Amino acid sequence: MITVGIIGSGNVAIHLVKAFLKADTVTITGVYARNCSALRGLVEANLVFTDANDLPRADVYLIAVSDDAIDEVSALLPPNARVVAHTSGSRPINSINVNHNRGCFYPLQTFSKSDVVDFSEVPVCIEAEHPGDLEILGQLAHTISRSVSIVNLEQRRALHLAAVFVCNFTNYLYGVGFEICDKAKLSPELLKPLINKTAGKIKNMTPYEAQTGPALRNDRTTIEAHLQMLQGSSREIYQLLTQSIQHERHKL
Amino acid sequence: MITVGIIGSGNVAIHLVKAFLKADTVTITGVYARNCSALRGLVEANLVFTDANDLPRADVYLIAVSDDAIDEVSALLPPNARVVAHTSGSRPINSINVNHNRGCFYPLQTFSKSDVVDFSEVPVCIEAEHPGDLEILGQLAHTISRSVSIVNLEQRRALHLAAVFVCNFTNYLYGVGFEICDKAKLSPELLKPLINKTAGKIKNMTPYEAQTGPALRNDRTTIEAHLQMLQGSSREIYQLLTQSIQHERHKL
Repeated sequence: MITVGIIGSGNVAIHLVKAFLKADTVTITGVYARNCSALRGLVEANLVFTDANDLPRADVYLIAVSDDAIDEVSALLPPNARVVAHTSGSRPINSINVNHNRGCFYPLQTFSKSDVVDFSEVPVCIEAEHPGDLEILGQLAHTISRSVSIVNLEQRRALHLAAVFVCNFTNYLYGVGFEICDKAKLSPELLKPLINKTAGKIKNMTPYEAQTGPALRNDRTTIEAHLQMLQGSSREIYQLLTQSIQHERHKL
Repeated sequence: MITVGIIGSGNVAIHLVKAFLKADTVTITGVYARNCSALRGLVEANLVFTDANDLPRADVYLIAVSDDAIDEVSALLPPNARVVAHTSGSRPINSINVNHNRGCFYPLQTFSKSDVVDFSEVPVCIEAEHPGDLEILGQLAHTISRSVSIVNLEQRRALHLAAVFVCNFTNYLYGVGFEICDKAKLSPELLKPLINKTAGKIKNMTPYEAQTGPALRNDRTTIEAHLQMLQGSSREIYQLLTQSIQHERHKL
């Protein structure tokens, strides 16, 4: 049995708590949060602490707070854990207070409060100041996920950057597509099979092999007609991404 | 039983042929293609015609050729079908030769040659010059898909434009993410659960509700760090999409 303490009450903290509560081989010894209303109904009241000093001993403390708060929050934590790891995709482990054995436990996923997350598929990227601590972080990660990787800071930052493109920016493009449908009095539901297919295609082919569309075909008539239907930032995005696809194409 | 003739041998034509071959209530009477090598092994040789005049009678002829060829190809077709429909997302039905009863049968999907397409989920958007012909086009569409919509030209063009954003551009962003992983000696496999989740999230929430990331949080430290890791068109895309997300955010 591994024991874990969670620090935070934001989306990542909540989803980690939910995942660990479901895992058989891990026990949450406590959750520390200044604002604990988000934890109500999720964990028993006697496991929620608003004073860091009350946080019970655990194998691992996981700090799931905003990047800028890691330093300050970690300084408040009692020396009651073998490893203290943050969950940030971009911060070095030495942003954690020097009094702790430091590490990282970065789940590569997008977390929205109301969403259900199946952690078993979520890659967990771990790093530790002391190589011996990788084992306990790996064990903890394996209690919730089948995908655990040892990833250094530079690689983790690359993953975080890649995630912005394939998740945050992609989701924004979904929004543009939905808006175009709304304006044409069409249900955005019509786009969902295409969105699923586009995500599913790259299971068996690379994005370069999967690329289709007017930009790739250099279909100037369609590209010009599309540009005339757009304005503002959507038009700029269309132009830039069309140029980028065509530039890649010329590279091939 | 509905009968259909297919014109073309590109990705859309091939996937339509495959779908109709699987459907119980439709018969392919012939496939006309100038280059019929792509059809080998797919349909029996006696159903493939390289002279349009030999194409047997059918309820519907579906023209699945490049947009610019619709006019020319449709002029070659014998008057052997009740309706002649093209499969283009952007061309008006009167790009089909005036000698025919004209229509459109637009499957909203991305078609790559080597990919398997489950047509049952693909929205088929139909339009007809004569309202009475909508029925036969609808019946034909229902033989392969559960999602059939009557969509006018303006709406169809909007769908086609939206598809460029949610499919072609999204796929390009997947490529950028994969490249960032490759450079960092990481397997792009790590991104696939996130890509699936991002597509899956919008089943139950709007893209605006699903939006996460440094741009939305206005996390300047991370945005600046990311920009320093990028160059060329990826950097421009990062800047433009970050600005666009923040602009939307200020609208909310």
